[in-house]
Amino acid sequence: MKLALIGVGLIGGSLAAALRAARRVDSVSGFDCDPSALVEALRLGIIDRAAASIDEAVRGADLIVIATPVGVAGAVLRSVAPSLDVDAIITDVGSTKGSVIAAAREALGAKFPRFVPAHPIAGRELNGVVHASADLFEGKMLITTPLPETAAPALARVEELWRGLGARVERLGHQDHDRIFAAVSHLPHLLAFALVAQIAGEPDANRKFQHAGAGFRDFTRIAAASPAMWRDVCLANKQAVASELTSFRDTLAKLQQAIEAGDAAALELMFERASSARRRHASDFDSA
Amino acid sequence: MKLALIGVGLIGGSLAAALRAARRVDSVSGFDCDPSALVEALRLGIIDRAAASIDEAVRGADLIVIATPVGVAGAVLRSVAPSLDVDAIITDVGSTKGSVIAAAREALGAKFPRFVPAHPIAGRELNGVVHASADLFEGKMLITTPLPETAAPALARVEELWRGLGARVERLGHQDHDRIFAAVSHLPHLLAFALVAQIAGEPDANRKFQHAGAGFRDFTRIAAASPAMWRDVCLANKQAVASELTSFRDTLAKLQQAIEAGDAAALELMFERASSARRRHASDFDSA
Repeated sequence: MKLALIGVGLIGGSLAAALRAARRVDSVSGFDCDPSALVEALRLGIIDRAAASIDEAVRGADLIVIATPVGVAGAVLRSVAPSLDVDAIITDVGSTKGSVIAAAREALGAKFPRFVPAHPIAGRELNGVVHASADLFEGKMLITTPLPETAAPALARVEELWRGLGARVERLGHQDHDRIFAAVSHLPHLLAFALVAQIAGEPDANRKFQHAGAGFRDFTRIAAASPAMWRDVCLANKQAVASELTSFRDTLAKLQQAIEAGDAAALELMFERASSARRRHASDFDSA
Repeated sequence: MKLALIGVGLIGGSLAAALRAARRVDSVSGFDCDPSALVEALRLGIIDRAAASIDEAVRGADLIVIATPVGVAGAVLRSVAPSLDVDAIITDVGSTKGSVIAAAREALGAKFPRFVPAHPIAGRELNGVVHASADLFEGKMLITTPLPETAAPALARVEELWRGLGARVERLGHQDHDRIFAAVSHLPHLLAFALVAQIAGEPDANRKFQHAGAGFRDFTRIAAASPAMWRDVCLANKQAVASELTSFRDTLAKLQQAIEAGDAAALELMFERASSARRRHASDFDSA
């Protein structure tokens, strides 16, 4: 199989490395708008060929993986469309699905059924192809959000590839996907970015960072994620993210009222609800 | 040395276990308002004697450690005061220092110089003495917030004990302590409790928890902390916590405006500020 990888970063690079390690690809051509990512990927043996354009990367490929920030998925898909081989399958790894599907539908036209929208629930606190890892997806969830038009063989092929890398494959409607991940992924990342940015902007930032306990360290780890990727996620999933943010700001307003009123019972009730939910769902987290 | 442990939970139990493992104590008497904690601590060999009252635990002890939620520190110190041996030292492990110091000053009167306010920056996601661990404080920070009145020998003794357990000891003014930890500990815990409680209360909570990525799992781990302990922390450090919450709610409001306005540059700027702060302070976290 010939793979074309558009966007050679942590996730795309890890996917290519994993497919290579599993001997599922014969060759990988890569394109990235950052030439140093291509140099690094060649050096690491993650790609065989650094393409000078999307067109050059895609020509002759059996599988095209879009692994760019979701904000440029539309532009990338428009460049991919004319060069596609007749049997080629296209898939992506984006954290939002509605916006990418809309872009793919417009860019690919009659070839849209060959696009398989996918999202691996995996990441690291270190960005870039230099931190790619062939085992990043082992035991992780891979979500596909197929449409009625999606070609069944293309979907089966993509899901089978991910299963071969150790991922647990699950299908969701793209609206459910975007709503669920606004709550359990996009909002937490926003809160972590916001808290770390706020503290970093304070005059005694250094002293505060030096006294960080485990809780704040978890926040900084989350906030180490790629700014460009998360900027695009917020904008691509704007409605669901804004709705989660609104609810959360209401929750914080109530919390502050309880603190200022000295309402110990209300505080303990909220904290206990969180703590017991964690205990109740511990098995979800252990298996994830 | 005879140790009296008032409050036999994760932190107090770990401290007693660590002092025992380091052969720094000859006997440990424990008191807890929850009898099952005492039974468990006896079974684990963390205490030698389950006292029926604070008075009974404290009588004859050289060192008294208050390891209850900070909200009851005042009541505990009032019970401790009359039974104190003439040379006994009192210390605590509370996450807030201003409120505990005020309570100690009132409760201990002339014996206040023998109180050494202390706060180990260590914890786990599992609560209770059953999860106590003798190596919990190894390599962690221990903060003391002595007052001008604090007896130098008592302070030296407590700091030396913690150093013997592998902790890095640092002194801070109690107001600095409370302000810094409102930002890097109390607020992050509040956010984690609030987010997990909010999602737990939604109709599709189960599906959301099942799709949690690493970021949300970090939040749930933070939110697994003791509700009673954190309720007390919020109320004991009310002013500093409310001030951090106010700033954070402003930050979120600006973030939401940027998302709704599609202001990609503002989002990337905030995320980049957080991400680069994490990189800049990586060494603080690695050593912590």
